Amino acid sequence: MKGPAIFLAQFAGLKPEFSKLAPIADWVASLGYVGVQIPTWEKGFIDLARAAESQDYCDELKGMLAERGLAISELSTHLQGQLVAVHPAYDHQVDVFAPEELRGKPAERTEWAVSQLTLAAKASRRLGLKAHASFSGALLWHAFYPWPQRPAGLVEEGFAELGKRWKPILDAFDEAGVDLCYELHPGEDLHDGVTFERFLAAVGDHPRANILYDPSHMVLQHMDYLAFIDHYHQRIRAFHVKDAELRQDGRSGVYGGFQSWVDRPGRFRSLGDGQIDFTALFSKLAQHDYPGWAVLEWECCLKHPKTAPPRVRPSSRST
Amino acid sequence: MKGPAIFLAQFAGLKPEFSKLAPIADWVASLGYVGVQIPTWEKGFIDLARAAESQDYCDELKGMLAERGLAISELSTHLQGQLVAVHPAYDHQVDVFAPEELRGKPAERTEWAVSQLTLAAKASRRLGLKAHASFSGALLWHAFYPWPQRPAGLVEEGFAELGKRWKPILDAFDEAGVDLCYELHPGEDLHDGVTFERFLAAVGDHPRANILYDPSHMVLQHMDYLAFIDHYHQRIRAFHVKDAELRQDGRSGVYGGFQSWVDRPGRFRSLGDGQIDFTALFSKLAQHDYPGWAVLEWECCLKHPKTAPPRVRPSSRST
Amino acid sequence: MKGPAIFLAQFAGLKPEFSKLAPIADWVASLGYVGVQIPTWEKGFIDLARAAESQDYCDELKGMLAERGLAISELSTHLQGQLVAVHPAYDHQVDVFAPEELRGKPAERTEWAVSQLTLAAKASRRLGLKAHASFSGALLWHAFYPWPQRPAGLVEEGFAELGKRWKPILDAFDEAGVDLCYELHPGEDLHDGVTFERFLAAVGDHPRANILYDPSHMVLQHMDYLAFIDHYHQRIRAFHVKDAELRQDGRSGVYGGFQSWVDRPGRFRSLGDGQIDFTALFSKLAQHDYPGWAVLEWECCLKHPKTAPPRVRPSSRST
Amino acid sequence: MKGPAIFLAQFAGLKPEFSKLAPIADWVASLGYVGVQIPTWEKGFIDLARAAESQDYCDELKGMLAERGLAISELSTHLQGQLVAVHPAYDHQVDVFAPEELRGKPAERTEWAVSQLTLAAKASRRLGLKAHASFSGALLWHAFYPWPQRPAGLVEEGFAELGKRWKPILDAFDEAGVDLCYELHPGEDLHDGVTFERFLAAVGDHPRANILYDPSHMVLQHMDYLAFIDHYHQRIRAFHVKDAELRQDGRSGVYGGFQSWVDRPGRFRSLGDGQIDFTALFSKLAQHDYPGWAVLEWECCLKHPKTAPPRVRPSSRST
Amino acid sequence: MKGPAIFLAQFAGLKPEFSKLAPIADWVASLGYVGVQIPTWEKGFIDLARAAESQDYCDELKGMLAERGLAISELSTHLQGQLVAVHPAYDHQVDVFAPEELRGKPAERTEWAVSQLTLAAKASRRLGLKAHASFSGALLWHAFYPWPQRPAGLVEEGFAELGKRWKPILDAFDEAGVDLCYELHPGEDLHDGVTFERFLAAVGDHPRANILYDPSHMVLQHMDYLAFIDHYHQRIRAFHVKDAELRQDGRSGVYGGFQSWVDRPGRFRSLGDGQIDFTALFSKLAQHDYPGWAVLEWECCLKHPKTAPPRVRPSSRST
Amino acid sequence: MKGPAIFLAQFAGLKPEFSKLAPIADWVASLGYVGVQIPTWEKGFIDLARAAESQDYCDELKGMLAERGLAISELSTHLQGQLVAVHPAYDHQVDVFAPEELRGKPAERTEWAVSQLTLAAKASRRLGLKAHASFSGALLWHAFYPWPQRPAGLVEEGFAELGKRWKPILDAFDEAGVDLCYELHPGEDLHDGVTFERFLAAVGDHPRANILYDPSHMVLQHMDYLAFIDHYHQRIRAFHVKDAELRQDGRSGVYGGFQSWVDRPGRFRSLGDGQIDFTALFSKLAQHDYPGWAVLEWECCLKHPKTAPPRVRPSSRST
Repeated sequence: MKGPAIFLAQFAGLKPEFSKLAPIADWVASLGYVGVQIPTWEKGFIDLARAAESQDYCDELKGMLAERGLAISELSTHLQGQLVAVHPAYDHQVDVFAPEELRGKPAERTEWAVSQLTLAAKASRRLGLKAHASFSGALLWHAFYPWPQRPAGLVEEGFAELGKRWKPILDAFDEAGVDLCYELHPGEDLHDGVTFERFLAAVGDHPRANILYDPSHMVLQHMDYLAFIDHYHQRIRAFHVKDAELRQDGRSGVYGGFQSWVDRPGRFRSLGDGQIDFTALFSKLAQHDYPGWAVLEWECCLKHPKTAPPRVRPSSRST
Repeated sequence: MKGPAIFLAQFAGLKPEFSKLAPIADWVASLGYVGVQIPTWEKGFIDLARAAESQDYCDELKGMLAERGLAISELSTHLQGQLVAVHPAYDHQVDVFAPEELRGKPAERTEWAVSQLTLAAKASRRLGLKAHASFSGALLWHAFYPWPQRPAGLVEEGFAELGKRWKPILDAFDEAGVDLCYELHPGEDLHDGVTFERFLAAVGDHPRANILYDPSHMVLQHMDYLAFIDHYHQRIRAFHVKDAELRQDGRSGVYGGFQSWVDRPGRFRSLGDGQIDFTALFSKLAQHDYPGWAVLEWECCLKHPKTAPPRVRPSSRST
Repeated sequence: MKGPAIFLAQFAGLKPEFSKLAPIADWVASLGYVGVQIPTWEKGFIDLARAAESQDYCDELKGMLAERGLAISELSTHLQGQLVAVHPAYDHQVDVFAPEELRGKPAERTEWAVSQLTLAAKASRRLGLKAHASFSGALLWHAFYPWPQRPAGLVEEGFAELGKRWKPILDAFDEAGVDLCYELHPGEDLHDGVTFERFLAAVGDHPRANILYDPSHMVLQHMDYLAFIDHYHQRIRAFHVKDAELRQDGRSGVYGGFQSWVDRPGRFRSLGDGQIDFTALFSKLAQHDYPGWAVLEWECCLKHPKTAPPRVRPSSRST
Repeated sequence: MKGPAIFLAQFAGLKPEFSKLAPIADWVASLGYVGVQIPTWEKGFIDLARAAESQDYCDELKGMLAERGLAISELSTHLQGQLVAVHPAYDHQVDVFAPEELRGKPAERTEWAVSQLTLAAKASRRLGLKAHASFSGALLWHAFYPWPQRPAGLVEEGFAELGKRWKPILDAFDEAGVDLCYELHPGEDLHDGVTFERFLAAVGDHPRANILYDPSHMVLQHMDYLAFIDHYHQRIRAFHVKDAELRQDGRSGVYGGFQSWVDRPGRFRSLGDGQIDFTALFSKLAQHDYPGWAVLEWECCLKHPKTAPPRVRPSSRST
Repeated sequence: MKGPAIFLAQFAGLKPEFSKLAPIADWVASLGYVGVQIPTWEKGFIDLARAAESQDYCDELKGMLAERGLAISELSTHLQGQLVAVHPAYDHQVDVFAPEELRGKPAERTEWAVSQLTLAAKASRRLGLKAHASFSGALLWHAFYPWPQRPAGLVEEGFAELGKRWKPILDAFDEAGVDLCYELHPGEDLHDGVTFERFLAAVGDHPRANILYDPSHMVLQHMDYLAFIDHYHQRIRAFHVKDAELRQDGRSGVYGGFQSWVDRPGRFRSLGDGQIDFTALFSKLAQHDYPGWAVLEWECCLKHPKTAPPRVRPSSRST
Repeated sequence: MKGPAIFLAQFAGLKPEFSKLAPIADWVASLGYVGVQIPTWEKGFIDLARAAESQDYCDELKGMLAERGLAISELSTHLQGQLVAVHPAYDHQVDVFAPEELRGKPAERTEWAVSQLTLAAKASRRLGLKAHASFSGALLWHAFYPWPQRPAGLVEEGFAELGKRWKPILDAFDEAGVDLCYELHPGEDLHDGVTFERFLAAVGDHPRANILYDPSHMVLQHMDYLAFIDHYHQRIRAFHVKDAELRQDGRSGVYGGFQSWVDRPGRFRSLGDGQIDFTALFSKLAQHDYPGWAVLEWECCLKHPKTAPPRVRPSSRST
C-alpha cells in the first residue's frame, strides 16, 4: 500500500493561493503527505485537455510535485463522471458541474462528460498512473426504494443503458492501461456492492471496471465495510481514508430528514472522530495485498479544514 | 389501547371472495381480531362517497361488522394521500393509484386525491371514528440525500407547498372531529420525526396533524423506534404492529441495491420474526396512555399471507 | 428445585375475601401454583404466635393448603426484619410496620421485631419448613455513597452492631433447623454480595445466615446476576422469580430522581416483560443443584395484579 | 469552548508549596493548561471575602495568573454549597466543611454557607467570570430509593424548601451577571436531569440556575451522558472533564457494598482510562455551541496525582 | 424444507423397548414428529446389509413407519464414517465403534468402515432417500493448533489421503443418487467450512460431497453460523436442529479444561435454551430454498432425555 | 509492576549479529526497554549450564546488560519445558527442540528436559531472579475435545503423571527461591485456569507452581482474560504483553481449518492492533499489586519484526 496521499478537492480555494497546484502542494507536503489525488475540474490544478496530449506538460507537472516530495496517486473526474448519466429529476442540481454553455442541454452535457473521461484516461497514461477515480452517475437513484412500486424491468433497462454509456470509456481506459475506479456513493447508481455487480454484468465483467473503496459511505448506509473487502478486494484499486459515524436517534434516521450534515444521524467526521475501525480495515487491505494508494479525504461537519488534515508521522509513510 | 385490529389491504383478493368485506371479516374474526382498518380504495370493502353522505350506509356497515364481533379501527387513504403531492419523477409509478381517466393528468389527479381525503373525513365522522390513516405524498423525496447538492431553499419551498395542500384537508378532518394520522414512511416527504416537525410548522401546529406510528419503517431507517415514542407520543394516534429487520451486510445496505424485498438487508417480517422489541414498545405506549388501536399490518418477504396473520389469544383482546 | 410457589404479599386484600388465606389459596391453586410464601404480618393469613406454639394449628394450616394442592415454601418476616435495625433517619418511614402501640418507640420496636423473628423460627419448624425469608434492616444504608466522606470506622461499627443483633436470631433458627435467608435488597444493609460477606464475617460465618436470591434487585443495581450465582450458590436457599429492567436514559439513572416506579429507568416488570434471562438463570441454579423453591414475586409498574400472575403450565410443576 | 482549565481542589497541598496559588499555577501552566477552577475554601488560594469587596485584590489575582498564561475559568463553592441544605443524618459528616466555631450548630452553619455563596457571586463579578461551580446540598438524598416507602408529599416539601433557600442566592448571582452551575452529583438532591428539573420548577425557572456537566457522575449512575446533552444543553454552562467506569460485577453493583473506591464497580479514572467517549461528548458540546470552559477534574483510584494530570498538546488549547 | 424429523441415536435404549424401531417410532410419532433419522449401527433399528440388498425389507421398514405417520429423513453412519480415517493417537478411543473382532486391527477396521458406507449408499437408494449423514474421520485433528509447529506438507498429505479414501465411497453414493452429507464437527478433519473446501478440492469437487449443517458445532467453535449458510448453502443437504451456548468465562474457554459437558463454557442445550437464533437461521435456509429435512438432534447437559424432545405443534409440520 | 521488558525469542537471528546477546541488547535498549526475557535455548545469548554453576559468569552477564540500562526479567525454558511431557502423537513435531543426538529417543529427551529445567532454577538464583517462564508440555492435549469419548480415568491419570514429572523440578525452583511460571497456552496440558487448578492439585498446591499470564492465548480461546485475573491473581508472577484478535467468521472458527496465522479467525497482532483492552488489564494487575515484570512478546501475522516492537515512551518505564 502506498501513501498517505490526500484528495485536494476539499481544499481548493481554502486560501486564495490554493487555486494553484504549487502552493497547495507546498502545504500538504509540509504536513507530511507523499501523494495527491487531483480533481481535474479545478483548472488551476491541471489542464486536462493539455495533459491528455502533451507529454512535456505531464512531465513538468510531475517534476514540480516531485520536487516537493509528492507523487500523483490518481486523477479524479468525480463531477464529470456524475454527468455521464443523469436522471431528469436531478438535471438542475448537477448543471453546475458542466461548462456554462452546456447547462440546460442534457444531451450535449453527457457528450462533454464522456469526452472528459476519455481525456482523463489519456492524461493518466502520460502521467504514469495506474488508477483513476470517478462517479458512475445515476439514472435510477430516485427509485432505490421499492415504494411506490417500480415498473417491472426499470432496473434492468437502467443498468443496460448505464453499461452502454460507460463501455467505450472503459475501453479507453483499458487502452491507457489504467483502472477506472468508481467511488461507491449514495446518489450514484453504483452505491454498494450489489449495484457494482449489476454494473459489472452490464459491461461484460470489464477488467478496467473497478472500485474506489471509501468506508465512510458504507457506514452511512449501515453496511459492513470490513466484510465488503472480503467480497470485493480483487476489484478495489483506489481507497479513500475517510471517517464517518451513524448514530441511532429517535427523531431521524438514514434519510436525515433533509437536515444539514451536522444534524444528520449519519455524518462525515475528521479521521479518528468517527466510528470506523481503521486498524481492522488496514489489516484487511494488507492481508489482501492491496496495491494502490491510501488517500485521505477530509470532510467534517464540525472541524475547520485549515486545522483538520492530520499531520503525518514519518513512520507511516510508504511509496 | 384497543385491539388487536388488522389492516385489510394485504389480504384483499387473497381468495376470490376476499374482494368483499363480509367474507374477509368472517375470516379475521375467526382468527380472533376485534377490529379492521379498511383500505378505502378497495371498492368491494367500502363505497367512500356513499359513506361520506349516508348515515344509513354507515350504520349498516358497522352493524354487519359488529355482528362478527368487529369494529372499524380507522379508514385508510394511503394511496389517495400519496397522490396529494407527487414529484414528476414518480408520476408514472403512482398513476395506477388514480382512476383510469385521470392517469397522465397530474393536476386533476391531485384534485381528485384531495376530494377523496375530504370524503374520508366525512365518512369517518359518520362511522364514529377518532382517527384516520394516510400518506403525505412527496415533493422532495428524490432529494433526501445531500449529494448532488440541493439548491438553497428547495426544502423550505417544498414543505411550504405541502402544507398549503394539506391545510384544507386537515381543516376538514377537524370539522369531522377526526385525527389525520400520517404513516411516516420512506418514499413520503413525512418519513421521520424531523420531517413531521417540518410539516407541523408548515401547517401551523394543526391539532389534527398526527402520526401513524409504524416501527418497521424506523428499523429500516436505522432509527431508535423506542426513543421516537418518547419524543412524539402526544401526536401518535394510530399504530401499525409490523415487524422488520435490518441486518448488516458486506454487499448492500439501507438502499438495498435495487434488490427485491427478500434479498434486501432491511425487510419486513411476520410478527415475531424480526428485530422489534414489542414488549418494550407496548410498555412505552402503555406508559404514555396511547388511546388508539393496535392494528396488525402483515407483510413478509418469506411467509405466505394465508398462514401468516397470527391467531389472537383471547387474553390479549381489548376494546 | 421445587415450585412454582407464589409470594402472597402483593395480593393480600386485592379482593375483600383475599384478607383470608383460604380464598387466596383457592385462587393461586387455580392458576396452577403448588406453593405459597406467606407474609406473617398478614394476620388473616397466619397467627404467628399461635403457629410458634401449637402443632395442631400448624397441622391444620398445612392440611387446609394441602387440600388445595399447595405447600408452604417459606414464611416471610420482611417487615419485621426491617425493624431489627433502623437508622433514625428512617424511623418515621418504617413505623407503620410496627404495632400501633410501639410507634415512636424505637427501642421497644426493635425488641418486638426480634421476638417476631424468634416466633417465625419456631413456627417454621412446626410447619416442617427448611427456609425463611426476611430483610436485614439498615443502620448504614444512608451512607452507601462515599460522598460526603464517611467517618473512618463507621462501616465496621455498623456491621458489628448488625451482627450482634442478628446472632441470637440466627441461633434460634439453627435450633429450629431452618435457614434464615436475607433478601439482598436496596434499602437494607445487606443489598449485594459484598455486604452479605461483611455480615457473614460479623456473625462468624453462621451456617444459618443465607441468601434469598432475587435477580430483580441486581438488575436495578446493574449487577451481574448470573455471576452472582457462581460466587454465592452455596448460600442461596430461597429464590424470588421476579423480573425487572434498567434502561439507560439521558434524564435519570439508577437513583431515579425521586420519580414513581413507572418513570424510573430501573423498574420491576411482570415475568417475561423485563430483561432477566431466566433460561440462563435456571440453568445456573440447576447446575448447582439449588435445593429450594422457586417463588414468583409479582410487582409491575404497568400491569394490574388481577391479570398479572402467569398461569402455570402443568409440565413446569415440581415438588 | 475554552480550555483546557484544571480544577485545583485535588492538588491543594500535594506538595507543601501547593498551599499557595502562585506555585501551583506555575505547575499547571508548565503542563500546558490555560485556565484554573479555584476552590474558594482553600484560603491559600483566594480570600473570598476580600475578593468580594476589593477590585484591586481581584485585579492583582488575575494579573498574577495572567503572567503565567492562565485565566480563571470559575470559582468553586462545592463545600459551602453542600452546607446550604443538610439532612440531619449527615450533620456529622459535613461538619468538617464549616469553620470550626460553627460545627454542631446546623442553623448557623446554613447561614454561613448562604453568605459564602453571596460572596462568591460578588467575587466572580469582580473577576469578570461568567459562571460559578457549586453543589446543591441535600435534604432528601437519604430517601432516594422508594423502599421503605416515602411518606406522601415528602419530595414536594423537600424541593420547596430547597428552592426557598437557593432563590435569594440565585438572585445575587443574577445581580452579578454570573451563572450558578450545580454539579449534578450523587449525595446532592440535584444529582440528575430529573432532579434539576424539579429544582428549576421550585425556583421559577430561574435563568441563573444552570448545570455543571460532569459525565463521570452519570457513568456511575448508569445514565446516558450523551443524551443528557441533547436534553439539557441550554442550561449547561460549566463542564468537568472527568473519566469514570462502571463495570458489571457479580459481587457488587452501583451501591458499592461500602467498599473503597478502588474496589467499587463504579469508580473514577484518569482521563483516557475510563469508559467515557470524549470524542462523541466534545462533538455534542461543539454542535450545541457550548460557550464555557472545559475543566479537567482529576480523581483516580489507581494513579498518583503527581503524574496523573495529562500534559496538554499545544494544538488543543483555546481561550 | 421438510420436517420435523428427529435423530434417534440419543434415545436408543432410553427405555428397554427402545432397542427396537417400532416402539421408539410410536413414541416420536406421538410427540408429533413426521420423520426419523436412523443410526445404522443400532442393529435393533435396521439391518444395514439386508437393507442394501432386499427391496422387500426396505419396503416393509418404510411401511411400518408410514403406518405411524413417519418417513425416514436420512440414514446415519456417523460411527462408521469416523472409522474411515483414524489417526493412531485415537485408535483406542474409537475401537468401540467397530465390531469386536476388528478392534486392535486398524487396517481391517478401515476396510469394514468403507464397506459399511457402501452398504448405506445402497440401502438409502432402496429406501428412496436423497441424503445420508456421516462423519469424515480424522487424520489431522490432533494437529489443528499451529503449536508445536506442524512439519511442512503435513496438512496437504493428510487431505490427499482423506480424499483417496472417500472418493470411491462418494462414487458409490453417486451411483445410488444420494448426497453424502458430512456433519462438520470437532474431532473430524471436516469441522468447518475451510476444511470442507480442502476436502472438496481433494475429491475433485465431487457433486455428492455435501454438508450436514449443525449450527451447535459452530457456536462451540465461535463461528458465524448464519454467514456459514450464505457461503455454503449450495452444499447443505442435511440439517440438525440442535441448540448450544458458548459463554465467556474467566476460568476456561473453548478447549474446556477437560471438564464434563455441564461445566464447559461451550455446551449443548435443549432447543430454546441455547444461544442459536433459529428464527434467523430458518429464514436463511428458506431464502435459499433448502430442499432437505429439519432433523432435531437432542443432547443436553442439564435436562433428561425423557422429557426433553419438544412436542411438535401441528402447524409446524411439513412433508 | 516493572517494565517494560521484551522477550528476545522472536528476534534472535533477525539480523546476523542478533545471534549474540550484546548487539540485540543494544537494539532493545535503544528502543527504550529496560528488561529482557532470555530464551535459554539460544546458545548465543546464554550458556545455561555455565550460568547454573558460575557466579562470575552470571555477574558478567548482568553487568553487560546493566551497562546498557537493562535487567533480566526472567529466563525462559519454553522449548525444554515442552519436552518434559510429550504425547507420542507429537513426538516428531517437537524433536527439533532437543539436541540432535536425542531425537527419536523420547525417554532420554525427557530426562534432558528435566535437567535443563533444574539448571534454569540454579541459573535464575545466581542471576538474582524471582520468576521463570516455561511450558508444561502435554500428555492429554490431543484429547481435549470430548469426542470421540475419552476412556474413563484418562484425564486423572494424565495429570497424575504430569505432576509426578514436575514435582522435583518445582522443588528445585523452591530451593532456588524462584517461581516457576507456566505460560497457559494451547498445545500444553496447562492451557487455562481449570487445567492449572488440576495441576496444582496434582503437585499438592506447590507454592512455586505459578502462572505466566498471557492474555493473547485467552482471546484465542474466547476466554474472559480480565475475569481470569480476578480468579488467579495470587498465582500470576509473570506476564506477557501480547495482543490478539478473534473475529467471528462464517468459514472457520477457533480451530482455524489448518490455515496459516494470517488467515485464521484467531491470530496474534502487534500491540494495539488487536482486541485486548490493556488499560483495563493493567488496572486489574495494579489493583492486585502484581509484583513482576511486564514483558512485551511480539508476534504478528501482518507486520515485520524489524519495525514492529513499539518504541517505549520514557514516562512508562518503571523498575
